[in-house]
Parts: sequence; structure tokens; C-alpha cells
Amino acid sequence: MTLLEETVAQVIPVSQELLPLIEAHLNNLIKPQGSLGRLEDIARRYCLICGNAAPRLGRKAVVCFAADHGVSVEGVSAYPSSVTPQMVRGILNGDAAVSVLARHSGVELLVVDTGVNDPMEGMAGLLRHKVANGTRNMAQGPAMEVDEARRALEVGILMADEVHARGVRLVATGEMGIANTTAAAALCAAYLQCDPDKVTGRGTGIDETRRQHKLEVIRRALSVNRGRLDDPLTTLAALGGFEIAGISGLVLGAAARRMAVVVDGFISTAGALAAVRLAPAAADYLFFGHRSHEQGHGLVLDSLGAKPILDLGMRLGEGTGAVLAMQIIEAAVKTYLEMGTFDGVGVSLMLER
Amino acid sequence: MTLLEETVAQVIPVSQELLPLIEAHLNNLIKPQGSLGRLEDIARRYCLICGNAAPRLGRKAVVCFAADHGVSVEGVSAYPSSVTPQMVRGILNGDAAVSVLARHSGVELLVVDTGVNDPMEGMAGLLRHKVANGTRNMAQGPAMEVDEARRALEVGILMADEVHARGVRLVATGEMGIANTTAAAALCAAYLQCDPDKVTGRGTGIDETRRQHKLEVIRRALSVNRGRLDDPLTTLAALGGFEIAGISGLVLGAAARRMAVVVDGFISTAGALAAVRLAPAAADYLFFGHRSHEQGHGLVLDSLGAKPILDLGMRLGEGTGAVLAMQIIEAAVKTYLEMGTFDGVGVSLMLER
Repeated sequence: MTLLEETVAQVIPVSQELLPLIEAHLNNLIKPQGSLGRLEDIARRYCLICGNAAPRLGRKAVVCFAADHGVSVEGVSAYPSSVTPQMVRGILNGDAAVSVLARHSGVELLVVDTGVNDPMEGMAGLLRHKVANGTRNMAQGPAMEVDEARRALEVGILMADEVHARGVRLVATGEMGIANTTAAAALCAAYLQCDPDKVTGRGTGIDETRRQHKLEVIRRALSVNRGRLDDPLTTLAALGGFEIAGISGLVLGAAARRMAVVVDGFISTAGALAAVRLAPAAADYLFFGHRSHEQGHGLVLDSLGAKPILDLGMRLGEGTGAVLAMQIIEAAVKTYLEMGTFDGVGVSLMLER
Repeated sequence: MTLLEETVAQVIPVSQELLPLIEAHLNNLIKPQGSLGRLEDIARRYCLICGNAAPRLGRKAVVCFAADHGVSVEGVSAYPSSVTPQMVRGILNGDAAVSVLARHSGVELLVVDTGVNDPMEGMAGLLRHKVANGTRNMAQGPAMEVDEARRALEVGILMADEVHARGVRLVATGEMGIANTTAAAALCAAYLQCDPDKVTGRGTGIDETRRQHKLEVIRRALSVNRGRLDDPLTTLAALGGFEIAGISGLVLGAAARRMAVVVDGFISTAGALAAVRLAPAAADYLFFGHRSHEQGHGLVLDSLGAKPILDLGMRLGEGTGAVLAMQIIEAAVKTYLEMGTFDGVGVSLMLER
């Protein structure tokens, strides 16, 4: 068995066995029942993922995968591919939004080159796992060979292993790759079998004319690759990207190790969707950090039954929304772990009814 | 002039003069324009409040005012008044939700007795500014004398002064007081001149029968106090509470010192509404931490033109939602202050169009 197949086999559904214990503890905390709202849902889910009714909070990390997209030659983005390495440098230097937010939230930031079309010279701290110099143009054929997609998936799995071994218990997905909303939209349209118009948005800020062009490119990609879309892995290879496959692998690797994952915005959600198609039980290990402003994110979230934590109109990617949401998740788990109980502190909140 | 009048006079609208400078900086950060969504709005607002296009982040504090309500004898809450001092003890001990969240968020927690009906013995750390042993029953007459309400307001103003003097630049409102959703609902109905049904919710978790009773009590309070509702201060005295007036005072004091305030849920919003009626420009200094699950919060938020930061179905009060939102506000300001700029780092993101 390959690492991918082995990992997929290790992704098992979360056991609900501890739920009554968790529920009893939540209702014993000194507050009206249910009054912490979604914080209670988050704490419950975190416990179930860990398989522990008194889980520990570990370290936090965000893994930001970077790669380029052959389809960018079609003019689907407001930016040229040369921006990908520039922004990777910005992330490594601590200048990018995700760098600032990771510092703010006490989250370790790992930046992984899985397929940037640049030699990436002089970039201290970059994790070098380049599979290829970007994908091929999916409007003319498959973006990746199946074996290439598998290698990018396995990079993600290895990253999950590595951060888990270092004590990380909450890992966020992030990405940087010019034109990757185009790949993500094509991928979502294929997996959800929906009209690509519903998941094709304005990305970094293109106008409606350019969005129509992007949509037409996506339709071509879906058409030229139509023979490859009946299997989750070949679909990912045909329409995905090296950073998207990296995210999928991170999700699978984390789920295999019972580590909670915080999924960022539209592109990360596409990667998570691919992971869930490869191993459906991976869905049990996911938190969705935020609802992106990107058109179509809501549809994909709904298909995954996901209720994102934040809704702040962000559309930057990099892992920014996921990193912000980590503070909420940690807060939720801390209320569960650290609040006093009616038993413990002798507060007798008797219902008068 | 009294301290209250003096403070109200010091609350002046935020100047928009720096807006072009702030906007230029936001658009110079290495990201697509507007892609940080509401984080950009938050950073912009924080700068305007500080009157500084390069503001500093200071310390953070939450001030939790505690008081009892005479109207609780009407059976409007699921809990008896004796729970107020018990929960104050829980907050001081570090066991309550707000205690945990304040620790998590690096927020100093101040607990102020402005009117708990209990001697509060042996409560180390409690700030003692009790105006009276709880309000009178507003269903039979005014909850407070106007002078009592003024004194509670001035306690809030003094708290704003005190935290500001210690370097706090972001202050959150919090409260603890059994039956205070009843007072808050009456107050909101009076200020908004709306049917109290629209702002009367289930508080800590009463059923619909009890909610109808609570509504009837509120209607009685509005009726018996109808001669006192034509002025913001007499309205607050007639229908408010000592913790609600404390919150109003904190808002006024903070606004007078150009300090940003994070308003918590329904009760805090009622306090903020009173402050805005007393000094309309105070609205410029407010962030609204979250949308509470409590029925009617949305209506009151809309009346203030407020867009809350979080929407997590919380309905616990204490300042919990505001304290959580502080991390988002701080994150937003940090992206503004710490991200690289196109000018600065030489990233040339040229539009291809």
C-alpha cells in the first residue's frame, strides 16, 4: 500500500461514545444550559475528535502550501503567476496577513512549496517539497498526472505527521497560488456536479467580464477532462493544483491521527472536499474557520454540512480565516476545561419553576 | 456641572479627517484591495477612534458590573436573585465563562458591585461601588431615583478613567444581574418606542409561558412609568438597573477619552443605547462584539446601525462575547500595523488588465 492508501484506510469515523459524558460536563458548567451557543458545539466536537472527554490543548500550526497553475495563462486572475513566489517571500518574511495573524494567535506558520514555478532561491524557512513547476493548463488537459497529485497529497500527509509529532493538536490549512480559485471552482463543480457558474467567483478581484471568461475556461477544463472525473483522485489530478492536493493530504493525515483541522476559505474548502471524497470520515475532523466572501463558498460549505465559525467578508486565503478562528476554537475548549462546575464550586442555581 | 454632564459634553464625534490616509495605507498593504473584509473596517474604525493613522494597541480590560433587580420578585427569570452574588464569586474566582475567556484573551477583568442585594462579604478583588441593594420593582414605580442612576453612571465613568489611566485602549462591557434581560427589554422598548414583545426574549432559558408573563410585567413597568420616559436619563432610572447604568457610564467615559469600547450582548447593548441617547456621538466609539441569541438583540443593533463581529449563538452575558471579539479587533489592528506594504517590500503586484 502507498502512504496515501494507508492513510485513507486509517481515517475512521469519530466515535460518539463519549457524547453523554461530554454533554453532562457541559451542563454542569456554571452557566445556563446551552448559553455558550456554538462554543459548546465546538468544545463537543474537539473532544470527540480527540476521543477524550477531558482533552488537552496542544500547539497550533498553520500549513501554507504554495503552487502555481498552468491555467493562469488563460488570463483568469488579476495577477500574474510571478506574484506567487513574491507572496511566499512575504509570508516567510512575516509581512503577509497570515504571518501577522499567526503571530497574533500563537500559531506556528509552515510554508511549503509543492509546486511554485520558480526556483525559490534565498527563501530561508521554506519547506521544499516541489512536485513540479506548477500544473499544466487544465483547459487543455489534466493539470497533473495522477502520480503527481498523489505525491502532493503525500507531502500534505507528511506535514500532518510532522506537526503532530511536535505536539500540534490543531492544524489550519492555508495556500498561496495565483489562479487557484479557478482550479478550486472547477474541482468543486466536478465533485458537486453543479453548474460551474455557481462556484466561480471574483477571486482576488476581477470584474464581471473577466469572471465570465474565467467561467468559460472552467467549462473548457471540465469538458476536456470529462473522462477523468469519475474518481476522486483522478478528478483532483485533472482539475486541482499542487497546493490544493497538499491541503487534501494535510486533512487526511490529520484525520488519520485524530488531529483537528481548521479549514480556511474557498480554496482550502475545495481541498477538504477532495479529502472527504477520498475518505468520507475525514469530515468528522474538520472545523471550518470562516465563510469567505468568494462566490460559491457557501454552496460548497453546505454540501459538507459545514457551519463556519466566522463570517467577516474575508477573501484573502493564505490561511488567514482559519488562523483567526483557531482563537475561537481554543477559547471554546478552554471554557469546557477551565470553567467551574455546579458540583465543584457549590453554586446552587436552582430553577424556580 | 456634575461629572456626568461634564463627560457627556466631552463626547465629540470622531473626526473623519484621517480617513484618506488610513485608506491609502490599507490599500498599500500586500493583499488584494478589500480582501481582509471586515478586518479592514475594524482597523479603520479603531484608527478613527484613536484619532491616529498609526495607532498603538494598548492593554485590554473588561469591566463587569453586577447588580440586582427588584422586578425579579415578579418571577421573570429562571433564577432567584441569590444567584447574582454566587456568580460574582464565580467570576472573581476565575471559574466563570468570562473569567476563562478573559485569561485566554489577555484581558484584565474588573468586577464592580454597583447594586447587588447582598453584603458581598469575603469577595477579594471586588470593586465596591454599591449605590443601593438592588433596584426597586419597576412594575410598581421607577427602578431607581434619578440621582441613583446618575451615581451608577458616574461609577462607570470612573471605571473608564481608571482603566484608561492604566494604559487600557480597548475596554469591554460586561454584566451580571438576575432579571436584567427584563430591565434591558423594557429600556429598549422605551428608547426605540417599539412593542416590547419584539425585544422580550427567553433570557437564561425561560419557556414561552414565562416569557408571556415577563412581557406582561414589562408592559406594566412601561405603563406605570409612562410619565418618566421622555428623557434619556429619567428613562434609564425608571426602567434600567445599576449594572446597566454602569455600562452606560463606561461607554460615556471611554468615548470622552477616545477609547474604543466593545459592547457585549443584549443587556450591554441596552446600556450602550442609553449612553447614545445621553450623548449621540458615543456611537462613534463602539464596536459590537457579537449578535446574541437573545430575541430582540438584532432589532436594537439595527437601531444603532451596528454590525456585530461574531455570531455564535451565545446568550450568557458577563462580557463573554465582547471579550472574544477583542481578539478579532486586535488581530485587525495588527494586520493594519504590521503587514508589509507594496511600497515597503518591493512586491510589485501589477494588475494585468
